[in-house]
Amino acid sequence: VIVEVIAVGTELLLGQIVNTNLAFIGSALAAAGLDSHFQTVVGDNPTRIATAVTAAVSRADAVVVTGGIGPTQDDLTREGIAAALGRELVRSDSYVDDLRLRWERLGREMPESNLRQADAPAGAEMIANPKGTAPALAIEDGGKWIFVVPGVPEEMQLLMESEVMPRLVALAGRREVIVNRVLRSWGRSESQVAEMLDDLYSGSTNPSLAYLASGGELKLRLTAKAADAGSARSLLEPMEAEIRRRLGESVFGSDEETIERILAALLTGRKWTLATAESATGGMVAARLTSVPGSSNWFRGSVVAYAPDLKERLLGVDLAHPLVSGETALGMAEGARRLLGTEVGIGVTGSAGPDPLEAPPGTMVIGVATPEKAMTQTLKLPGDRERVRVYATTGALHLARLGISGKWWNE
Amino acid sequence: VIVEVIAVGTELLLGQIVNTNLAFIGSALAAAGLDSHFQTVVGDNPTRIATAVTAAVSRADAVVVTGGIGPTQDDLTREGIAAALGRELVRSDSYVDDLRLRWERLGREMPESNLRQADAPAGAEMIANPKGTAPALAIEDGGKWIFVVPGVPEEMQLLMESEVMPRLVALAGRREVIVNRVLRSWGRSESQVAEMLDDLYSGSTNPSLAYLASGGELKLRLTAKAADAGSARSLLEPMEAEIRRRLGESVFGSDEETIERILAALLTGRKWTLATAESATGGMVAARLTSVPGSSNWFRGSVVAYAPDLKERLLGVDLAHPLVSGETALGMAEGARRLLGTEVGIGVTGSAGPDPLEAPPGTMVIGVATPEKAMTQTLKLPGDRERVRVYATTGALHLARLGISGKWWNE
Repeated sequence: VIVEVIAVGTELLLGQIVNTNLAFIGSALAAAGLDSHFQTVVGDNPTRIATAVTAAVSRADAVVVTGGIGPTQDDLTREGIAAALGRELVRSDSYVDDLRLRWERLGREMPESNLRQADAPAGAEMIANPKGTAPALAIEDGGKWIFVVPGVPEEMQLLMESEVMPRLVALAGRREVIVNRVLRSWGRSESQVAEMLDDLYSGSTNPSLAYLASGGELKLRLTAKAADAGSARSLLEPMEAEIRRRLGESVFGSDEETIERILAALLTGRKWTLATAESATGGMVAARLTSVPGSSNWFRGSVVAYAPDLKERLLGVDLAHPLVSGETALGMAEGARRLLGTEVGIGVTGSAGPDPLEAPPGTMVIGVATPEKAMTQTLKLPGDRERVRVYATTGALHLARLGISGKWWNE
Repeated sequence: VIVEVIAVGTELLLGQIVNTNLAFIGSALAAAGLDSHFQTVVGDNPTRIATAVTAAVSRADAVVVTGGIGPTQDDLTREGIAAALGRELVRSDSYVDDLRLRWERLGREMPESNLRQADAPAGAEMIANPKGTAPALAIEDGGKWIFVVPGVPEEMQLLMESEVMPRLVALAGRREVIVNRVLRSWGRSESQVAEMLDDLYSGSTNPSLAYLASGGELKLRLTAKAADAGSARSLLEPMEAEIRRRLGESVFGSDEETIERILAALLTGRKWTLATAESATGGMVAARLTSVPGSSNWFRGSVVAYAPDLKERLLGVDLAHPLVSGETALGMAEGARRLLGTEVGIGVTGSAGPDPLEAPPGTMVIGVATPEKAMTQTLKLPGDRERVRVYATTGALHLARLGISGKWWNE
């Protein structure tokens, strides 16, 4: 099965945003073993959308179109596809009801333009969008398929993974199954890990190994192909075990296990609660922890003590120590435990840049205290202010993971 | 003049790298007032490259091809273009000498494959590449033009700016300049805004209007074309003024002015400091504020009082009120002012979901208190937990903007 991808959006043509959707869809197709020969970017113009769709349908077995299905007048993908296929746009009554209900629940009046999202080329299947109001579409035409997903990355990604990819794989009718395993690691750079795993990387094509650095962690993606999922997993497992052996505690989880979900499970297991005291990360550690649904069961709160006097007054930190030091980070962690009444405290202090405050930009110090023990770690992080803060946040959560599971680190 | 862009590279199709070249070229074309309707990504395959070139030449006046002109066997752009135009590949003797000289100077033997870079479709002009070994190409065919530049971003950018753009502008005969203005708004949905501005959207192509929702705000992009930047700006200004008049305080800034930078400027102007007290946003408001370099001049800290007893004990909130209520949000804002010693306090409470805690998921209440006055706002936000939190964060910063600038809101 050959799949072509079309991204719709004048802002893409104008270069106002970089097209990450094409990379996401391209890599999803590649991971599933589906061929893709062309990607097209077209503006919000129904005639040109129709031109792109017609060309893609003539060359490929299936076409994925992303973008241009929102509620506004410049969302014209539905019109373009209808024109390409010579079909009418039909309004779905049940989806109209659905939209009205959503707006009613919000207690707001729905602008009539929203109803455009209930339109689809005749014969299209509407696929509910759990993260937004524009449904995805699946349209069959002369044995070929067109799938339409939103351009908003989170909505597109969810619908690609849950709906479009399984259908494309089924279309391919392939006996080969692809199984992926993502190992999530922290604390070693991509080039360090690449050097440690060089023989596995070069020496094996099934399973294959790839690296992706994102959001302050390094993901290792293992991919195996086999006749069935069980055999594919048996191919994966020896390589996964070998990687875990070599990287040790750097690998903190796999697949959907984020570091904050792992902490949630560890804390729940020990019946412990957690608090943070933050300076340079300015609340990012607390924000990451509270992104987990149900975090109120184990997270009590945080003090962002950005001004030095607050570190002393609220957290009892001894200001005789340098602001960016293990003593201060640990004082903050202990202060958070005491003030907020928790078993575990995380303290983060540092200099995120661009100006050097007390320490060179990129110097971040983490303290973790539990009823059993306490430890600190000093990170020297490259990059700009935002990158330093994101990496320090992941670092703080990772150090807490080690502390809560009793794996003490000696700086 | 209509220009089409083709990016060549199998790694782009596979999503192994994000295609930033298309955004660069697209924005260069837009800045020069040149229209572009399609971008195509194609793999390292001469037949498919020929297909893409043939389609582009048939639709446009000029085509820019980037990538696939290096020395290795999978660099096949030259072959693809020659096939599309029905021309032979001709080796340039003078460029062969050039290449040999370069390698001699490096004191190394040149691999024979390098000579492929001296090949070009018959009649092509070779343009020297100051940053690499593959020359750019300019090819005229039946009054249309094909420009070929490397895929390496620095080489591509230099050759686009110094060689290709001037030639395209000359082809266009008349130099048109494009000026963009982005208005950033909060508080109205994309569809509401689209309805309020429907006549401007439909009634004007120069300036034109487009919408982009991202990160909890709605951006409105105005684009004007004229002979010079001043005239383009004069076209923009009346539409900008009219949009600002209709949307009022919803428009908080333009272009690079983020809501947190605007707050920073307002607070600095009034010599006020700020603190936050957060529940459902879990530190996100503080994290956004401290993303601004130099925020320590006006931001003192935050209390993330996730557990209800901390709201009472640290912030002095009266727990007789519902946890998700204006009274609690305001009590948190006042508590933050008092505890952290600031002029301005922001309080955020709510139910981010997925479970309904005290209020339906998506109900978020913001309180803002200053030495002058205090106010609250209740938001009912759609979407999942993360989206609700991001939108509430922007909402909190926006309400603080109104409060600090003395624009009081009556709920």
